[in-house]
Amino acid sequence: MTDERIARAALTRLVEPGEPRVVRLVAQLGVTGLLAELTDELGALGEEVAGRAARLDVERDLERAARLGIRFVIPGDDEWPTCVDDLAHLSDEHRYRGAPLGLWVRGPLRLTDLAGAVAVVGSRDSTTYGEAVAREIGAGVARAGRCVVSGAAFGIDQAAHRGALAADGSTVAVLACGVDRAYPSAHRELIDLIAKRGAVVSEVPPGTAPTRLRFLSRNRIIAALSTGTVVVEAAVRSGALSTATYAVGLSRPLMGVPGPVTSAQSEGVHQRITRGAASLVTCAADVLEVVGAAGEHLQAHKRAPETPRDRLASIERRVLEAVPVRRSAGVEAIAATAGVAVDRARRALSGLSEQGFVTAAGSGWRLEGRSGLDLPEIGDGDAYDR
Amino acid sequence: MTDERIARAALTRLVEPGEPRVVRLVAQLGVTGLLAELTDELGALGEEVAGRAARLDVERDLERAARLGIRFVIPGDDEWPTCVDDLAHLSDEHRYRGAPLGLWVRGPLRLTDLAGAVAVVGSRDSTTYGEAVAREIGAGVARAGRCVVSGAAFGIDQAAHRGALAADGSTVAVLACGVDRAYPSAHRELIDLIAKRGAVVSEVPPGTAPTRLRFLSRNRIIAALSTGTVVVEAAVRSGALSTATYAVGLSRPLMGVPGPVTSAQSEGVHQRITRGAASLVTCAADVLEVVGAAGEHLQAHKRAPETPRDRLASIERRVLEAVPVRRSAGVEAIAATAGVAVDRARRALSGLSEQGFVTAAGSGWRLEGRSGLDLPEIGDGDAYDR
Repeated sequence: MTDERIARAALTRLVEPGEPRVVRLVAQLGVTGLLAELTDELGALGEEVAGRAARLDVERDLERAARLGIRFVIPGDDEWPTCVDDLAHLSDEHRYRGAPLGLWVRGPLRLTDLAGAVAVVGSRDSTTYGEAVAREIGAGVARAGRCVVSGAAFGIDQAAHRGALAADGSTVAVLACGVDRAYPSAHRELIDLIAKRGAVVSEVPPGTAPTRLRFLSRNRIIAALSTGTVVVEAAVRSGALSTATYAVGLSRPLMGVPGPVTSAQSEGVHQRITRGAASLVTCAADVLEVVGAAGEHLQAHKRAPETPRDRLASIERRVLEAVPVRRSAGVEAIAATAGVAVDRARRALSGLSEQGFVTAAGSGWRLEGRSGLDLPEIGDGDAYDR
Repeated sequence: MTDERIARAALTRLVEPGEPRVVRLVAQLGVTGLLAELTDELGALGEEVAGRAARLDVERDLERAARLGIRFVIPGDDEWPTCVDDLAHLSDEHRYRGAPLGLWVRGPLRLTDLAGAVAVVGSRDSTTYGEAVAREIGAGVARAGRCVVSGAAFGIDQAAHRGALAADGSTVAVLACGVDRAYPSAHRELIDLIAKRGAVVSEVPPGTAPTRLRFLSRNRIIAALSTGTVVVEAAVRSGALSTATYAVGLSRPLMGVPGPVTSAQSEGVHQRITRGAASLVTCAADVLEVVGAAGEHLQAHKRAPETPRDRLASIERRVLEAVPVRRSAGVEAIAATAGVAVDRARRALSGLSEQGFVTAAGSGWRLEGRSGLDLPEIGDGDAYDR
């Protein structure tokens, strides 16, 4: 085992993920240099890590992890997902926390096999609507052969994972606690299933408990592992928006799913769309179009189904449009309204009648059910009828 | 009465609104010139208008209209809303139908008093959600002193008008039939109320029945009378989208209200937002910000309410964030996680305890209800607990 690997594993146990001072010290001293400072008790980070350092036994840590089927992946490893290195180039404006020192991984999916992964995240406190959409998008993204990355939380996260699993696709859960733990505990089975079929990933070593700080740091890993991030529901101050901010900082596409304007759970998403930070997506096809390589996932834009009216010749359509709504009219009046000669109008009306669009009524014509002109009945009082 | 006025009134009865050939002929011959051609039966538009010309009696038309409280407003009149003249500059791409020849008006509101009017339109086949939002936006726009323009149709239109009326604001209904008529007839009372408190407007003369063609032409008047257009709900092929297209063609702001992605009635709106044709708005304040003069309606962006956590000093917040979720920890562990000295952590925890954020638990501390960290219980199995 290399010094580098041991130093990185040790540091994940000694310091907090994304702690800015540590990121700076690693840049200055290197991981082995920093570890030497810490364990020599030269006090680079002082008494703050002393308690942890006293209990440190990296070799045993790595052995115990291996026994639990957990590997520790570091930069330079074949499996290292280089996409997370972009985190080292984030500006302070985007809450600089640096790239992870390493990633603890449980599950068969190699982190280099996430090609084109999409993060699907959102409120823990989600609505039935939001969960249904997250499940659909998770399934659609997975069916397109892309990995769904999320945080295994209640609400949107679990729905996105479950959608991917239901579609027999690959999914990655990034945790704020050790990958041997389940947080929330109600998701123990879900997290174990992801570890069986995809991968459970964390910056913090096995056994570590989650803290608010670790949740925020965790969110940058979700954004960095993915080519784009979809926020399905998020209130104005939802934690899911921190993932969104990282996606923007990383210059990866940010997408938002709209919802009722009356739902607080959609407010944060609507704000991002209004400000131009996120593009609006309504389904997996929209997501794939945004993150896809040029032309790769170009979707046919939804069109209304073609109606019989669409198949009419332009002259017939024009005459049809001139027939009053729910009232009959003579051929001359119809011709005048349509702006065509009376003879042509008469021929067109006869054709329209055969196709079921109009029907003869007294000396004139009126619309039939098939006209496609779904307008309610007209008022009375035709003082000046044309 | 001038020849010009008589010619324009006559032409509104003889030809269809926005008929491209008529628009061209008016540009060539002027309105009196074109009318001479038509009534001399020189056949500029041929037999198509012969029937109507035979029945034409403009002076009687105008007298009868006046008796019904209907005025005919033409370009050059004090009351002429010059904003509709922009329709003469639309390109074919935006379905060129020209400016109206004149407008028949019923109601006390002068068309020059629409300053800053906002069109609020959408599906006839709307949802309860869409109607509620249209009513809110109509009311909010009206309360801001702006006129609400719509088409008096079922669904979104009527909700927008009713919202404005309920707020005691001004509203204009633009009809595809004569202003003496009510279409749909179920809206007779609504239209009469608008005529009493605002204005009912049409390009087509009194007594005229609506046709599909006239609905489409009518939509351009709605867009042209308004400084911006809001589409509340519209399926992919809703007629409301033709109003949207005119707004874009006129370079006036187009706004769309999002809704559930599962609702077909929001699909057309979502498409316009995705393509960048419309901006996303969620309430009247958003609308006013888009159409308002610079700074005039700048709204305070919705923020989540400030929490007690927000008022903490940064050191206290940092310590608080380091306390494990639903589990106690010793002051050393908390200090190490927070990255602060043990003494400072102890002082901070004591302050946090006084404020109800943490509570002493055995030899350590745990989170209290006020912590604002609303996370569910943690899993067990702390093999490596920090």
